[in-house]
Amino acid sequence: MFESFKEHSVAEFFKKNRQMLGFSGKIRSLTTIVHEYVTNSLDACEEAGILPDIKVEVKEIAESRYKIKVEDNGPGIPKKHLGKALGMMLAGTKFHRYLQQRGQQGIGAAGATMYGVITTGNPVHAISGYKGKIIECDIYVDFKTNNPILSNIKEKDGEFRGLIVEGEFGDVKYEKSNYGAYEYLRRTALVNPHAKIIFIDPSGEESLFPRSSEQIPPRPKEINPHPLGISAQDLLDIAVHETEFRRISSFLQNRFSRVGLNKVSEIKDLIPDIDLNKDPKGLDWDEAQKIVEAFKKVKWIAPSSEGINPIGKELIEKSFENILHPEVIAVSERKTRIYRGGIPFIVEAGIAFGGGIKDANKKGEIMRFANRAPLLFDAGACAITESVKEIDWKRYDLKNFEEEPIVVLVNISSVHIPYVGAGKQSISSEDDVKSEIKFAIMEAARDIQRYISGKRKKHESETKKKVIGRYAHQLSKDLTELAENKDSKNIEKRLNDMIENKYIGWKYDKKYRFKKTKTAWRKYV
Amino acid sequence: MFESFKEHSVAEFFKKNRQMLGFSGKIRSLTTIVHEYVTNSLDACEEAGILPDIKVEVKEIAESRYKIKVEDNGPGIPKKHLGKALGMMLAGTKFHRYLQQRGQQGIGAAGATMYGVITTGNPVHAISGYKGKIIECDIYVDFKTNNPILSNIKEKDGEFRGLIVEGEFGDVKYEKSNYGAYEYLRRTALVNPHAKIIFIDPSGEESLFPRSSEQIPPRPKEINPHPLGISAQDLLDIAVHETEFRRISSFLQNRFSRVGLNKVSEIKDLIPDIDLNKDPKGLDWDEAQKIVEAFKKVKWIAPSSEGINPIGKELIEKSFENILHPEVIAVSERKTRIYRGGIPFIVEAGIAFGGGIKDANKKGEIMRFANRAPLLFDAGACAITESVKEIDWKRYDLKNFEEEPIVVLVNISSVHIPYVGAGKQSISSEDDVKSEIKFAIMEAARDIQRYISGKRKKHESETKKKVIGRYAHQLSKDLTELAENKDSKNIEKRLNDMIENKYIGWKYDKKYRFKKTKTAWRKYV
Repeated sequence: MFESFKEHSVAEFFKKNRQMLGFSGKIRSLTTIVHEYVTNSLDACEEAGILPDIKVEVKEIAESRYKIKVEDNGPGIPKKHLGKALGMMLAGTKFHRYLQQRGQQGIGAAGATMYGVITTGNPVHAISGYKGKIIECDIYVDFKTNNPILSNIKEKDGEFRGLIVEGEFGDVKYEKSNYGAYEYLRRTALVNPHAKIIFIDPSGEESLFPRSSEQIPPRPKEINPHPLGISAQDLLDIAVHETEFRRISSFLQNRFSRVGLNKVSEIKDLIPDIDLNKDPKGLDWDEAQKIVEAFKKVKWIAPSSEGINPIGKELIEKSFENILHPEVIAVSERKTRIYRGGIPFIVEAGIAFGGGIKDANKKGEIMRFANRAPLLFDAGACAITESVKEIDWKRYDLKNFEEEPIVVLVNISSVHIPYVGAGKQSISSEDDVKSEIKFAIMEAARDIQRYISGKRKKHESETKKKVIGRYAHQLSKDLTELAENKDSKNIEKRLNDMIENKYIGWKYDKKYRFKKTKTAWRKYV
Repeated sequence: MFESFKEHSVAEFFKKNRQMLGFSGKIRSLTTIVHEYVTNSLDACEEAGILPDIKVEVKEIAESRYKIKVEDNGPGIPKKHLGKALGMMLAGTKFHRYLQQRGQQGIGAAGATMYGVITTGNPVHAISGYKGKIIECDIYVDFKTNNPILSNIKEKDGEFRGLIVEGEFGDVKYEKSNYGAYEYLRRTALVNPHAKIIFIDPSGEESLFPRSSEQIPPRPKEINPHPLGISAQDLLDIAVHETEFRRISSFLQNRFSRVGLNKVSEIKDLIPDIDLNKDPKGLDWDEAQKIVEAFKKVKWIAPSSEGINPIGKELIEKSFENILHPEVIAVSERKTRIYRGGIPFIVEAGIAFGGGIKDANKKGEIMRFANRAPLLFDAGACAITESVKEIDWKRYDLKNFEEEPIVVLVNISSVHIPYVGAGKQSISSEDDVKSEIKFAIMEAARDIQRYISGKRKKHESETKKKVIGRYAHQLSKDLTELAENKDSKNIEKRLNDMIENKYIGWKYDKKYRFKKTKTAWRKYV
């Protein structure tokens, strides 16, 4: 039995378990390929401070076999890293940094390349324009070693800057459904208005998602971890690579956020037996554990939102307006919170109700995003879906979520999104994350409720006004006769004014509410 | 930006993304640890042909900190492999073999060890009794390299055979809920009656799940892949390691199931330009692709169920009886099918309805199993849950699934289960797998429906009989008078016989139906 004991590469693992990377089913597999290359392009452009121009082309070349080409105007990839970036799993610039990006694992693009190799035997072709050099090559994956194999390498000087990846993929299918590449790119464009995306589908039809904002989102900023976010093991892992700072005290101040001189001396007081002038490389687990315990006893300022770029209220509202034309929109943006002790994240939730959603006869839809990347699959296992389902919508004057013309949008932004799987399509139900999602949705839902109940009150008020108004004419005549007064017109006018004043209340009421709420609140009727 | 380009180990990846292995939330994390060590124990015992005796002990030693010990009577692990089996990811005897086992990735146990190290800094302690040698050591994980580090190694001769793993784990919690270790072991015992499991919970309470069958399930058998199950890449991967067979023709016959001389000559005719006398190691991708294409054109016998061990009807029925005491049980066992072209699998579904389930006021529960291991988490993303939800239960004379006293059990058996993630808690919605799950449930549901509608008919029949029976006495008297006959008793008896005959129909009807259905069908009323 132990004769067959073997070690395996991570590439072999994901080759056998390709469904874990999102390669299950032909339609999903195609969308996953587009998703991986496009998120890489967006991340590269944003990190380099470039307004992204992305072109995606999908061509059918045989049954279940497509050519997919993704082209960007990003910084390109230097020759040295090109093969590994596109053909090696767990390699890249993202995995170890505390940085908000769409990709965070160093698996995605290599996974797409792998899928091409598995299903067609062909390498993926890449052209990279980086700092005046254009490198062109074929990239293949050696599964046994998880190493990229490059061939047909050509190099020349040239103006082109960016990355073009082109490959053939089998066992895939294009469909213009909710799970297809078109919908994926549409939703990407929706929350990335600074990107221009062109999509050419297999029929040759070109869709342009134009850039609607010239503002590049702030460059993702590498931040230091918050002391509350780390375990003793993390502390050791960081300390062991420390080369710049020779003392634990300066190491703590420079490698963690919110740690200043005062905090160091507070920590010192809590653990007097540990010499903070020691070299951090000499820390052992017990000492690290004691420092982490001390971290927990100190009062910290919450992690800053530095390095975290949510979509923002305005943009969510604008997106809703553009695609849904709803009757009312409410958006809530929560403060920075932490999960797993200290990883910062921000949740935004938007709710659109009625109007265009009703006209389109759509019901209870959830749009999920993480770091501005749309999540189309695995909805059932996602903390966002779970949160929406667990909310008691009747409390917000709504029937079942599934039966109302309502769209809930949730975006989570973080330097590390807790995805359920390597396929990055659903958010794990970490307690802190889930409760924050719920609060965000409920906050927006309260505003929708105010609108709905306000509307109902207005309706009731107007009905009463109309009913009572019907008596004004006759009553003014009768009063004129009774009072032997001739001026029935005047009496009727004054009666009408009284009714008007009595039932005008809702408007002020609404205005007051409008001010009271912290969230954006618009009405398009 | 590319200065920070790095490569990472799979251990680092899962350390940062521990939720992907099932380590999210304290309760789930504890259950995951028990699950990983226990499935390893069961697999080891079964492969060695040993009736499993497993003892699990969970002790609280501080807040959120527990000691967990799992002991088995399996074959033990030789010294050479002990560290890697428990402390290295993607290493083991299972990943590359075509074999039905609970574990299949070579990640689980190492993941549990990793979690102990991350959360306490302590290594896991292991004692292995293998072939007369007892090895004892501490196992630690080097995350940067994904290598186990062994310390305090002691070796002696001794009688003990088996494996004891004991570790301290932080950030965990024991709870006797549906997601706790107790429920996990209860469900494990339920479908593994050949195992004896003892569980000692943190309060010291001992639960014994006794062995109820002395029959060891057939040893998992390593099978050859079916030609329809492999891609060109797979074919190349297998060929490149071929040492025994020097010709493609004999390689195909010996490394794939269902390939005989006739099939080889059929394949030869389809691809005359490929020399099947060549060394398989010399195959290139195009040739492999042509062989795979030829595979698809040949008519194959379906993959055999060899190597696949479902739970079996009887055992599912017995389990239902023991724990649920339902009014009626229906079990369907489907034939061997293939997914992804050729990976064989078998689906079983059982439905229990009414009786004890009703009394306990339980409603619409789903019990999921894969290769006899219970799946407690991530229900939302599972093909089994999706299937149950997509079935139109009204067609089976049932209201909403959620509102009926009904329990659906589904078990999938395969040499490779398509799990959604490395945490192995839900089945990916591969088309072929999902439709098979649905068919299995629907088959069982039809029998439940027959029972329900039969019961309703019987009820109607009995009501009619009772109503009409009320007139028999009076009518027999009146008839006796009219006919001037004295024997009213005889008339009454004959009338009653007539009524009895008329309304007895349902019983035969039921019998007939009983025969007609292929599935087991029992009635406990």
